[in-house]
Amino acid sequence: MGRILKKRTSIDDALRCFLENVFPLRKTEEITFEFCTDRILAETLVSGRDVLHYRRAAMDGYAVRASDTAGASPANPAQLQLSDRIETGSAIWVHTGTLMPIGADAVVVVEDTSIEGDIIEVRAQVYPNRNVADVGEDIKRGDLIFEEGHLLRPCDAAVLASMGLDRVKVFQKPIVAIIPTGDELVSRERAGEVPPPGMVLETNGLMTALYVRKWGGIPRHTGIVPDNPDSIKKAVEANLDADMIILSGGTSVGKRDHVPDVLASLGDVLVQGIKVSPGKPTVLGIVDQKPVVCLPGYPVAGFVALYFLVRPVIKRLASIASPNECVLRKRLATKITSKKGYANFICVFFEGDKAHPFTGAKAGSLSTVAKADGFVLVPENVEVYDEGEEIDVFLLE
Amino acid sequence: MGRILKKRTSIDDALRCFLENVFPLRKTEEITFEFCTDRILAETLVSGRDVLHYRRAAMDGYAVRASDTAGASPANPAQLQLSDRIETGSAIWVHTGTLMPIGADAVVVVEDTSIEGDIIEVRAQVYPNRNVADVGEDIKRGDLIFEEGHLLRPCDAAVLASMGLDRVKVFQKPIVAIIPTGDELVSRERAGEVPPPGMVLETNGLMTALYVRKWGGIPRHTGIVPDNPDSIKKAVEANLDADMIILSGGTSVGKRDHVPDVLASLGDVLVQGIKVSPGKPTVLGIVDQKPVVCLPGYPVAGFVALYFLVRPVIKRLASIASPNECVLRKRLATKITSKKGYANFICVFFEGDKAHPFTGAKAGSLSTVAKADGFVLVPENVEVYDEGEEIDVFLLE
Repeated sequence: MGRILKKRTSIDDALRCFLENVFPLRKTEEITFEFCTDRILAETLVSGRDVLHYRRAAMDGYAVRASDTAGASPANPAQLQLSDRIETGSAIWVHTGTLMPIGADAVVVVEDTSIEGDIIEVRAQVYPNRNVADVGEDIKRGDLIFEEGHLLRPCDAAVLASMGLDRVKVFQKPIVAIIPTGDELVSRERAGEVPPPGMVLETNGLMTALYVRKWGGIPRHTGIVPDNPDSIKKAVEANLDADMIILSGGTSVGKRDHVPDVLASLGDVLVQGIKVSPGKPTVLGIVDQKPVVCLPGYPVAGFVALYFLVRPVIKRLASIASPNECVLRKRLATKITSKKGYANFICVFFEGDKAHPFTGAKAGSLSTVAKADGFVLVPENVEVYDEGEEIDVFLLE
Repeated sequence: MGRILKKRTSIDDALRCFLENVFPLRKTEEITFEFCTDRILAETLVSGRDVLHYRRAAMDGYAVRASDTAGASPANPAQLQLSDRIETGSAIWVHTGTLMPIGADAVVVVEDTSIEGDIIEVRAQVYPNRNVADVGEDIKRGDLIFEEGHLLRPCDAAVLASMGLDRVKVFQKPIVAIIPTGDELVSRERAGEVPPPGMVLETNGLMTALYVRKWGGIPRHTGIVPDNPDSIKKAVEANLDADMIILSGGTSVGKRDHVPDVLASLGDVLVQGIKVSPGKPTVLGIVDQKPVVCLPGYPVAGFVALYFLVRPVIKRLASIASPNECVLRKRLATKITSKKGYANFICVFFEGDKAHPFTGAKAGSLSTVAKADGFVLVPENVEVYDEGEEIDVFLLE
């Protein structure tokens, strides 16, 4: 029988306690660049090549010996002979990217020249290396390009490709098993019929699966498990090959809410109950070293637990560094009052620089979340945000 | 022969002129929810069902006639008979989500009760509808849920699924043909060998393809096309079945730069040359009503054109509304000087609330972009941002 460590914990403490028990997977795979965007590099990359690998003209114009242009100006142009090799007094046409001809050490840009037959008039003096790009100008052989853990963007892929790579080692995405529990649930395969009274379509698992994928995991959505301890236990055990398990429903104190006890019988319950509204009945635990999150069955409560407790765990498993969170500053269009002792999750929609909160009866319905642009998390110790107050608003993903 | 409308235009003017000629595709397809995240709804959705579709208990406790609890308090509890049907003086156990028994109009929460045999002691008065969720509480049949053009998030999918939908109509993603041009280019299929001097691996097409996919398009990456007008013309014509064409390279004024002329021969060149550094030689046009962008061959210049001119066009084609851009306020760690008359693109890396600009020789290399966290776009009319100045920084995607 496992331990139950914490009851009714703040979001921050709950997350800290959970993350202390979650470790990056570090399983790797090799992929080509085609789908590398947003993957995490599992190796530190040092360039094996010089990029550029040759000395090239950096502008369109004439490759010359710089010394042949000494003193050249519009009033006193130098005259060079168009040629196919560089000697004293000769010039070769080059365009951006051309290999510099042997013997040339500078390029006069075409705008500073004119041509008459095979005589080039040069109206500006150039110094050695002017408009010439050297070997290794972009990347030198041996340069450290990216460290392990770097999140790959399209521009990064192009840099790696320029070094002659055609694949990279990245961390595998965590597999997240999603187990909906509840006798009242009807599979979405039967979405065409209205369920009998007392029964509802299973939709929290769908929402969870789509967020798991968005946040960098691979969802494995299992069938619906009935509200009995044995079935729930078997479902958890059958999914211990996954990297994380999310159960949905059955976390409250009702007679049917077996999930916390089952979790305690299989491993450790770290946190039972979070000081956030909605989202209170969330349970966090570890079974067989795998993080297990039990989401409340109420959709908005489940949503809150996903955002604040599942998202950071998936990112930790996947070795994704904390992102630069996109926080907007908005003015509250109407006052918010918040339940004391709880962090309060409140959806808002935007109108210019104003955030309008959704309050009242509908605040707990997922269709309200779906109408929202963002959300506010009112801290535990704040009871009121006044109308017109400037607050941090998070974009709803 | 097409027209050339504008030379050396500001980014804003160029983009405005281009977008006036680009229209949302509006071709639709039906998809299931599994991969609906970030897709754009192509229909306005009105619910065909009530969600909830039955009257249910909103808490765990006892379903009762509210009138039977009149005056109940801890000092003066009401006594009710546990039963399987509701009559005067009876109560039925319910948990959250249970269909309300016929005749019951309220739920007393379990915390306000105790049980002794089959007698329930009720220590609080409830009013009709207390702790009862009504039919249509979340969504009423006929409610407008989302308008056409809505970007689907995971929470939205769950709402649609709760209405009994199992698929949605979305706009097709635009197909974007990507045509790398240049005699100096070597296919990445030969990435294993260092190219001969004067030749370079084709990597701009890769970068472009990955950004196209990230921004909501489907990239179609063609083979490398040599620097001659006929080949370029044939490649453009062969891809006019795509929704947009991006050519890379050959846009400058060098002797090999045929792309603008080819474009003018096939359609209209709207803009040739943008007042941005790097990125000046970008060309924008329309052929057969399809937007065509010619990216400069220099990787950072190509990158700038992708960000400021390709991204908004893909979003327009895909009917993706302007996103809430993630702009961060940072203090400049060192002074930036900027080329007058040009918007200057400058990469920065972050250190706390400070942004360190990359300047000097390396500023034009893609490996510098790859080292950056974000970028600053210094407006045309600004020549200096001072050290310590607070500026807008865009996150680099």
